[in-house]
Amino acid sequence: MVSKVREKIVNAALESFHDLGFSACSVQDIVDKAGVPKGSFYNYFKAKELLAVEVLEIYAAGSRRELLSDTTVAPITRLRGHFEFMATRYAGFGYSKGCLIGNMAAESSDNTPLMRQALAESLARWTSAVAGAIREGQKDGSIARGLDADTIARFLINSWEGSVVRMKIAGSREPLDDFFRVAFSLLSPPATETKKARNSRSIASRV
Amino acid sequence: MVSKVREKIVNAALESFHDLGFSACSVQDIVDKAGVPKGSFYNYFKAKELLAVEVLEIYAAGSRRELLSDTTVAPITRLRGHFEFMATRYAGFGYSKGCLIGNMAAESSDNTPLMRQALAESLARWTSAVAGAIREGQKDGSIARGLDADTIARFLINSWEGSVVRMKIAGSREPLDDFFRVAFSLLSPPATETKKARNSRSIASRV
Repeated sequence: MVSKVREKIVNAALESFHDLGFSACSVQDIVDKAGVPKGSFYNYFKAKELLAVEVLEIYAAGSRRELLSDTTVAPITRLRGHFEFMATRYAGFGYSKGCLIGNMAAESSDNTPLMRQALAESLARWTSAVAGAIREGQKDGSIARGLDADTIARFLINSWEGSVVRMKIAGSREPLDDFFRVAFSLLSPPATETKKARNSRSIASRV
Repeated sequence: MVSKVREKIVNAALESFHDLGFSACSVQDIVDKAGVPKGSFYNYFKAKELLAVEVLEIYAAGSRRELLSDTTVAPITRLRGHFEFMATRYAGFGYSKGCLIGNMAAESSDNTPLMRQALAESLARWTSAVAGAIREGQKDGSIARGLDADTIARFLINSWEGSVVRMKIAGSREPLDDFFRVAFSLLSPPATETKKARNSRSIASRV
């Protein structure tokens, strides 16, 4: 019974923070949405910021990042699928909600150090998963090798987050399409690199 | 005297929104910072959102976008200088504040339609200025021609905004360095294109 109340608070917060933002939602708004008395909030959370930290984890867990390490799928296809999965989620919200991670990061300030730390950790885990797929693609020659995988992964995630913010303003998928068009052109190996990779593969198959 | 009060409110709001975010600042916080009575706020602004619209304009006007159309400077140098100017501003805030446009865009929701519209217009003007410089560079062969200038401009700005959000979390310039490294590699013409541009220039000089 007790855990049911906690769960209601977390679910209400996830929805409210995503709809309106962290600062725009008061504890009162959250307990009203959850349908629980305000006093019960403080039984479970010492501060709204600690609730935000928990909500971030749940949000990230729903992003199906495990697809990024599915070696039965080509690395570039995995990467595209990863971002397309998120694009589909945004479409479901009419392109009006954005990404909870990016929204909270933009809202973070010197007054929210715990949220900042949770975001830094969450972004580091995400970067590592994206970089893993890029590294595999660079190894088999299907992804350009000009820049190191971690740099590209950070850049891709940051570009994606910026595109998602712009999507909220545009109210359409256009900024995500810009991302797919331009960011994925970055990942294509130049013609000479592709040729080298093909040659090394054909040499390997003859050995 | 009257305009002095208004000015104080606008300046206080610019600083407060940039420090803490739009939703995290109440009208009370703003008038306290401005040192004016709360009643005076509503003499000048019907709502906090209308003040945000005005603050956005002032913020954008301080971004020295006129440098993007300075034809005495090479287009790629102008573009780099434009983003470097902003990076220097962020350095001045210890990489903790981010971009007011990106922050407000991330905070915008269905509850802030006026802010969204102002942001859409502001981003469109910015995109147009960046696209102008890219177009010039594509014309003289110093910038890659593979993608159209408006698409690249939107992507660059979105990537920049995402990088600036990540900068707030990292508390360092690293995400901006990632941006300069990767985004500017996109703008470099491929070797074959450079050769063609060089040839067409040398043909032109012979005609």
